[in-house]
Amino acid sequence: MATVTAPQDPEADPRVKAVFDDIRATRGTDFINNIWRYLAFDPGLLEATWADVKAVMATPSALDPKVKELIYAAVSVANACDYCTHSHLAAARAKGASEAEIADFFRVVASAGKTNHLLNALRVPVDEAFRKEV
Amino acid sequence: MATVTAPQDPEADPRVKAVFDDIRATRGTDFINNIWRYLAFDPGLLEATWADVKAVMATPSALDPKVKELIYAAVSVANACDYCTHSHLAAARAKGASEAEIADFFRVVASAGKTNHLLNALRVPVDEAFRKEV
Amino acid sequence: MATVTAPQDPEADPRVKAVFDDIRATRGTDFINNIWRYLAFDPGLLEATWADVKAVMATPSALDPKVKELIYAAVSVANACDYCTHSHLAAARAKGASEAEIADFFRVVASAGKTNHLLNALRVPVDEAFRKEV
Amino acid sequence: MATVTAPQDPEADPRVKAVFDDIRATRGTDFINNIWRYLAFDPGLLEATWADVKAVMATPSALDPKVKELIYAAVSVANACDYCTHSHLAAARAKGASEAEIADFFRVVASAGKTNHLLNALRVPVDEAFRKEV
Amino acid sequence: MATVTAPQDPEADPRVKAVFDDIRATRGTDFINNIWRYLAFDPGLLEATWADVKAVMATPSALDPKVKELIYAAVSVANACDYCTHSHLAAARAKGASEAEIADFFRVVASAGKTNHLLNALRVPVDEAFRKEV
Amino acid sequence: MATVTAPQDPEADPRVKAVFDDIRATRGTDFINNIWRYLAFDPGLLEATWADVKAVMATPSALDPKVKELIYAAVSVANACDYCTHSHLAAARAKGASEAEIADFFRVVASAGKTNHLLNALRVPVDEAFRKEV
Repeated sequence: MATVTAPQDPEADPRVKAVFDDIRATRGTDFINNIWRYLAFDPGLLEATWADVKAVMATPSALDPKVKELIYAAVSVANACDYCTHSHLAAARAKGASEAEIADFFRVVASAGKTNHLLNALRVPVDEAFRKEV
Repeated sequence: MATVTAPQDPEADPRVKAVFDDIRATRGTDFINNIWRYLAFDPGLLEATWADVKAVMATPSALDPKVKELIYAAVSVANACDYCTHSHLAAARAKGASEAEIADFFRVVASAGKTNHLLNALRVPVDEAFRKEV
Repeated sequence: MATVTAPQDPEADPRVKAVFDDIRATRGTDFINNIWRYLAFDPGLLEATWADVKAVMATPSALDPKVKELIYAAVSVANACDYCTHSHLAAARAKGASEAEIADFFRVVASAGKTNHLLNALRVPVDEAFRKEV
Repeated sequence: MATVTAPQDPEADPRVKAVFDDIRATRGTDFINNIWRYLAFDPGLLEATWADVKAVMATPSALDPKVKELIYAAVSVANACDYCTHSHLAAARAKGASEAEIADFFRVVASAGKTNHLLNALRVPVDEAFRKEV
Repeated sequence: MATVTAPQDPEADPRVKAVFDDIRATRGTDFINNIWRYLAFDPGLLEATWADVKAVMATPSALDPKVKELIYAAVSVANACDYCTHSHLAAARAKGASEAEIADFFRVVASAGKTNHLLNALRVPVDEAFRKEV
Repeated sequence: MATVTAPQDPEADPRVKAVFDDIRATRGTDFINNIWRYLAFDPGLLEATWADVKAVMATPSALDPKVKELIYAAVSVANACDYCTHSHLAAARAKGASEAEIADFFRVVASAGKTNHLLNALRVPVDEAFRKEV
């Protein structure tokens, strides 16, 4: 149950149609997932959100696309974002993550959750050796 | 300021010394960072924590070590774990992450933070297409 | 699926009835939403929770009621509280938030989520200029 | 202690200088706070972050600037972002929030933290009456 | 809707059967809850997770089992983990927590949520008197 | 560095003095920790916060005081509240928690952090057997 209403015919709005067309072209698929269908309630927010996601996730950069999806999914897990966890694990698989890599992802995320809590409980001072600043 | 006291001479305890020796051998360095020095207050907790981190992070697996450190750091950022963010970004760099990859990491983590909040606000239903269960 | 059982006939308990009557009088509606129906499992917790919410949210104060609901909803989004996000966005609308304001709320919450993660990753020192203490 | 190194002379880079000039012009002050000084380590990330913050926070929209800063600060508190909490409460004050409004903000944020945890513990079902979808 | 597929006949795998047998023996019940049924998708992850939970939660230690379940549930509430909140409150009840204790748990968790947000907003310095380090 | 200014002579305000006196009497100590000294900036918020903490934490109830402090600290760890983690672990020790119990607390909190992340990644459906509702 969402807090906004997805428009019945989102592509009747030319700004929405332009974004959807770009999503389809960028991803090479006709499938438009729910986040975009709901964001169509506000074309400006839809445009800005897609522009950001496209620039970061669908544009070649230093890290490979599969790795970026796994990092994205890791943040989503820690933020308890149900939708984002599903969509970015699906994207990681679509971009080539094997089931062994996904299982490894679960191991790393769980281990991080463990030591994050341990350190947030112990409040250990950060080592000077980790200093990056000059 | 920590919530436990790090022992003054941790390696006087043979269980602590065994863990520290294994950390040094596994990592190929004499440096023992603070989390292990503080965990030495309870040798059993030190052993269990190192066993977990070693099995997940220092044992060959499907994902490469650098990628695992970036996933670990991503969870740590979302959990606001100061120590973990520093230590795992340092580890990612030590395992070969370039500064361009680290900058890319920041971009992905920030973008995930953005859409995580957007989705947790919109509460959009998860697409059936993301279903993994059979 | 809740972790407690909502009583079948909550207002049979005079302490519950008194709280429900006050909710109805304060809000000018007969509608009692689920949080109160479930909290009726423990009249003392119901009374204390309503007293707190009434004092903070239903009592005139420096900020106007609509703004308080938006701040409340913002915290709820960041805490991934599904119920609270729904109920306080509904309350913001009931207290006069326009759909344009709600869309603006989504933009601000998303942008905050972005820079929160960026800053929690960069761990930038707080400027002395922000110091409020004397 | 940050995870990146702030450049010594950031405005030697014309892309950085252009952003800093725009920050100064937009805000009507010579003060450049640390987030921008550190983000200068990567001009592209600096540009993208400022473009987002400027579009959302420094551009007239449905909600007034003070309210947007309070919503931003509310998210930052819930995410335990030290820097963001300081900078956006300072911004709220700079945009006219009175000390009484700031105190009210604290009350609302604390009350939201309370019921968020109560609801995340009780897992009460969302009322159909809150449904926004049609 | 899960992000992995639970095997149809998990105990056909002898490693899974061994874990399930140990869960049944340790808990004195035939009931295997969903987390283990889904983790069976990766026997190594299943083994490691059960070994950790068994060592911490099903082995006699300084705190009594009921108290450990309440602490576990408290973390789960704060992390918005729906499954964990349900399973560890159920475990607390199974290990003897009365309904009055569960109600008390809700009060404490809610109060902690309140002051956590208040302190994360106020950013008050930690008292030297709380220092544990020597 | 706090976001409010602690008054120089807080007990010059009779409302603040009354709260401080009650804290001293309730706790049987002259020590007033920083949260109360900073909250003195707003006597109404100070009174309401102390009333809540006193009712929940300093009033006999189903759970014993030490256990309540550990639950409180567990939530604080998960919320990355530095001040609260320190103050409530100190309170748990003051109310009788042994160092072995504190070490056990760390183990449970870390294990919960681990499975919380694992479950928030796997998104396993909650077992019907955990249903409390009738």
